[in-house]
Amino acid sequence: MLFLSDNAASVHPKVWEAMRAADGPDSPYDGDGHSQALDAKFSAAFGRDCTALWVATGTAANCLALATLCQPHGGVVCHEEAHIEADEGGAPGFFLHGAKLLLVPGESAKLTPEAVRAAIDPIRDDVHQVQPHALSITQASEYGVSYRPDEVAALSALAKERGLGFHMDGARFANATAFLGCSPGEAAGPVDALSFGCVKNGGMSAEAILFFDESLADVAKYRRKRAGHLQSKGRFLAAQLHAMLDGDLWLENARAANAAAAEIATSCGERLMHPVEANELFVRLSPDERESLRARGFEFYDWGADAARFVTAWNTREEDARALAEAIAAL
Amino acid sequence: MLFLSDNAASVHPKVWEAMRAADGPDSPYDGDGHSQALDAKFSAAFGRDCTALWVATGTAANCLALATLCQPHGGVVCHEEAHIEADEGGAPGFFLHGAKLLLVPGESAKLTPEAVRAAIDPIRDDVHQVQPHALSITQASEYGVSYRPDEVAALSALAKERGLGFHMDGARFANATAFLGCSPGEAAGPVDALSFGCVKNGGMSAEAILFFDESLADVAKYRRKRAGHLQSKGRFLAAQLHAMLDGDLWLENARAANAAAAEIATSCGERLMHPVEANELFVRLSPDERESLRARGFEFYDWGADAARFVTAWNTREEDARALAEAIAAL
Amino acid sequence: MLFLSDNAASVHPKVWEAMRAADGPDSPYDGDGHSQALDAKFSAAFGRDCTALWVATGTAANCLALATLCQPHGGVVCHEEAHIEADEGGAPGFFLHGAKLLLVPGESAKLTPEAVRAAIDPIRDDVHQVQPHALSITQASEYGVSYRPDEVAALSALAKERGLGFHMDGARFANATAFLGCSPGEAAGPVDALSFGCVKNGGMSAEAILFFDESLADVAKYRRKRAGHLQSKGRFLAAQLHAMLDGDLWLENARAANAAAAEIATSCGERLMHPVEANELFVRLSPDERESLRARGFEFYDWGADAARFVTAWNTREEDARALAEAIAAL
Amino acid sequence: MLFLSDNAASVHPKVWEAMRAADGPDSPYDGDGHSQALDAKFSAAFGRDCTALWVATGTAANCLALATLCQPHGGVVCHEEAHIEADEGGAPGFFLHGAKLLLVPGESAKLTPEAVRAAIDPIRDDVHQVQPHALSITQASEYGVSYRPDEVAALSALAKERGLGFHMDGARFANATAFLGCSPGEAAGPVDALSFGCVKNGGMSAEAILFFDESLADVAKYRRKRAGHLQSKGRFLAAQLHAMLDGDLWLENARAANAAAAEIATSCGERLMHPVEANELFVRLSPDERESLRARGFEFYDWGADAARFVTAWNTREEDARALAEAIAAL
Repeated sequence: MLFLSDNAASVHPKVWEAMRAADGPDSPYDGDGHSQALDAKFSAAFGRDCTALWVATGTAANCLALATLCQPHGGVVCHEEAHIEADEGGAPGFFLHGAKLLLVPGESAKLTPEAVRAAIDPIRDDVHQVQPHALSITQASEYGVSYRPDEVAALSALAKERGLGFHMDGARFANATAFLGCSPGEAAGPVDALSFGCVKNGGMSAEAILFFDESLADVAKYRRKRAGHLQSKGRFLAAQLHAMLDGDLWLENARAANAAAAEIATSCGERLMHPVEANELFVRLSPDERESLRARGFEFYDWGADAARFVTAWNTREEDARALAEAIAAL
Repeated sequence: MLFLSDNAASVHPKVWEAMRAADGPDSPYDGDGHSQALDAKFSAAFGRDCTALWVATGTAANCLALATLCQPHGGVVCHEEAHIEADEGGAPGFFLHGAKLLLVPGESAKLTPEAVRAAIDPIRDDVHQVQPHALSITQASEYGVSYRPDEVAALSALAKERGLGFHMDGARFANATAFLGCSPGEAAGPVDALSFGCVKNGGMSAEAILFFDESLADVAKYRRKRAGHLQSKGRFLAAQLHAMLDGDLWLENARAANAAAAEIATSCGERLMHPVEANELFVRLSPDERESLRARGFEFYDWGADAARFVTAWNTREEDARALAEAIAAL
Repeated sequence: MLFLSDNAASVHPKVWEAMRAADGPDSPYDGDGHSQALDAKFSAAFGRDCTALWVATGTAANCLALATLCQPHGGVVCHEEAHIEADEGGAPGFFLHGAKLLLVPGESAKLTPEAVRAAIDPIRDDVHQVQPHALSITQASEYGVSYRPDEVAALSALAKERGLGFHMDGARFANATAFLGCSPGEAAGPVDALSFGCVKNGGMSAEAILFFDESLADVAKYRRKRAGHLQSKGRFLAAQLHAMLDGDLWLENARAANAAAAEIATSCGERLMHPVEANELFVRLSPDERESLRARGFEFYDWGADAARFVTAWNTREEDARALAEAIAAL
Repeated sequence: MLFLSDNAASVHPKVWEAMRAADGPDSPYDGDGHSQALDAKFSAAFGRDCTALWVATGTAANCLALATLCQPHGGVVCHEEAHIEADEGGAPGFFLHGAKLLLVPGESAKLTPEAVRAAIDPIRDDVHQVQPHALSITQASEYGVSYRPDEVAALSALAKERGLGFHMDGARFANATAFLGCSPGEAAGPVDALSFGCVKNGGMSAEAILFFDESLADVAKYRRKRAGHLQSKGRFLAAQLHAMLDGDLWLENARAANAAAAEIATSCGERLMHPVEANELFVRLSPDERESLRARGFEFYDWGADAARFVTAWNTREEDARALAEAIAAL
């Protein structure tokens, strides 16, 4: 029973279907009908005009978005455990030409306006120190905790006040939106760019970067090509995104993953290190307890010396989630 | 009848099959069995130990390969019409951190040792001029012309003599190998790195970078992640490459495309601007003649004011090729 | 008798004096009074508001200026023999993060609107090709030929029409201005940024970048620091520039160098490869003739197989120039 | 009485003399005799073969050195308050093409092997995390504390064990060497590259990068030109370095600055936040106390809310140091 990560789960049958349906000769790159139709579909979903670019990975999505918001000599304010800081192999340094990540602490990997201010206010406004150009948050956070719309709004207001571009890493944006029970537009708030995740949510190889400012998207199109991310058979990426949006499959998948996580959470009680507001659980478990769970067939990652991370996916079986919940309860 | 490009043709059924078979949970990134098995399969095919990395595009393949062979302050010697110079949106400048392309003329977009020497010998060996670090050739060339093994060997000897890394852009390597009727190892010769194309040859979204020096591959693995090209469901890229190599589908597809091109070539005579040694034809055709062909349902790109480019693919129908041949003959 | 280059000539006594006068404790970087007074002095000289930044080299001046006018994914249109292309060790690739130089031919290393159009019009407006972002010309050109004000204006109009930033490399701007006999504002025309040379004209280690748009200067200040070009004892660079502007020493020095070149030119006749409109002469001379001149004590560089380059400086002695003229006449 | 910084103090008369003596025509760049003689002089001083490159700033020295020790996808381990992290405007990100600084805490801005291990041991050896390539320490540290030779040796051993290049930022290397009373070779230990400061120690505009591995210097020479740091009248930078080394002026100047700092330290007692082992004092002083000192004519920087930083220089007058000591004692 796999709780390792949602990033390796199977591809949803409807995604396969849409990809098959997209086969046949068509215009290359993003000139095909599937790619061309994305803007309208995402704009409708978000209730706000946007331009949607597909790319193959969340790392590319995040970094291409940020490269439009931060000049090479600037900095991106983010959480000290943000994916862009900790898990992307230095990709921001590459895509942003050496721009710096300005790290901010915060509970459950979330930022607050106070914490951001505390980090950037001491930066002297001179050329010796890297100035903040952009702010990036993760919805849901690295610890599976979701920003409420008013929290996003407060951070957006701060970003505007300080002249910072505002980006949201939405690798698990579907899970956050499903948890919040609001519209995607509300879950995203007034960000300038959103990395809209799909691969962790039943997709194969497509993420979307949504730009709510067309001039940013224009730059990103050149940068995408320049980074080798403009696939010639782009219709297969577009098709995955259409499959996700059609009939709100993306929310259906996220709800399923969230429900499995919630099921497991019921038995975790005090063991939970963070609220479960998406599809990830960080659970205090001793080495012996982890060994016992693994002996029963549960696969998951250790999280430091005394905890474990469990991630559910769109196709986590209810019985597996229940079995894990019971196994934890029985420890 | 489409002769626009092979980069938008359909995906081969066996590629679809292999991708479907690769679904199901597995290790993420390149930790899955499919990805892990690539080195052995490519080493066997090339008769030479190599490390194979999948990436989604030829641009990424070329630039990640070159980044291991050329330092940021160096230069890459290539043909003045090479894809890396003319069609990759400045990607080499990005991946190689500002390294320079040192351009060389040559018939049919091929380089010769003499032309390379003529370009690099005048470069003063001082810090004011960018020094060549690597040599990159394209097999088959931008004009669909294939290097013979002894031509590759001569360029390799020059590269060694001058201490240059040696890279081959093999976006249409299959077509060249099929044309030459030799082994892939012979068609590649002693290059350090080969971009092995698959997307133009019936694949969907996978190219391989083959490194014949493990230390280069080690660097490229970090650079691939850093460029956002390490897909989490990498098994679907690996599966495409396996499908290509299994039963030599890659050569079968290339032979089909080459045969269609050869069929068309039979009627072109003096109109041909370059020998047809792969799956591309560059044909002298007046605007009127092109209009006449288009009126009959043939789609293709203009090539300057007085010529056209026709590209065949793995799935070009014999009757379409014949029809085009006859239409040209009838002009 | 040295005619090798003006870039190694002695430092003018007034420059020394100004530097000595600037010693004593002061604010570091560019906070000192000398640095702070540069904007006003250059604005007065050019009859146009500008912001002046000192840097130590022409390469840094050119590249910091261009980095404000061209994004990393764009291109800088310049002459194929421009200093930024041929002699700066790939510095534009470094400072501009991989942006590309788009090369244009042209007599005497000068650009014309026609030549620029011929180079950029064929660039397809798509992401596969690097788009021009800026235009850079050299006043006086690499071959010592000066743009007339109407020529600069025509190029500026083209730049505006195409949305290109406009930069002038003025390593020998003093010589051009002296030759043209116009005001510096007329010699520069409506450029966005000018690299104002001083080192080749009797300075030691200071060039100025003049920005005629304050927002560009603001970016350049961060980039200067980031490139390690913000010297802590910047007052010594500022002092050199003040010495040059005070009493128009820069024009006096340039006139002296130009006069020496003109003197030599009188005897060159048909041997001249380019008009002499600054302080450089490119003279057809056979190997034997060059040997003969060297035997008489003249030092200079060969220029290809059948020519030589002679460069005069602010301190070239009249008798040396005359001697060279006579020696050439006597060949 | 100025205790603001040593980076804006006057230029030593012997430096002026040497610069004047270097005037007159000579080979440009680093082809002049002064530049060519640096390797031998520094090798003799350090008792170890080295190649010496002049540059104008410490930022350029540090970053050009590090760029030879760390690839763009790697990281440089340094103190979290190191100059390269806190005060160079993001220059390492520029020169190292986006490489990351891996920050380590440590008392008085010094690193220990234990602290370095604690920082790098948790880095997973996979492509998702930036791997350390180099280690950089500052001698004397940002807080004016000097590494003992055995401390440098221990860090060097760790660097070797982990395959890290080893760099020393010696902006105040003279002060550390003078304090330690050892040879420069002992104060530097077995580093691969040393930024040898001169500007803060009575110089004008020259620092040296010493490479104890010629192949690193070869790379750095290209990078120096590419960064616009190869001045054409380089003889004036070389002359400054010669003036410093001749008769050990660099140590004489450093001893004077250190003595002034030591004089002040005598009255600081418990107020001292760090041992005084160079020419900087960090002194606990309330806002009132600082105001009182300023009222008496002492100029210095605040250091946070409750402290001040005093920096002495080669030309700090004994009576000024004594006056400051007495003023602090009297508080």
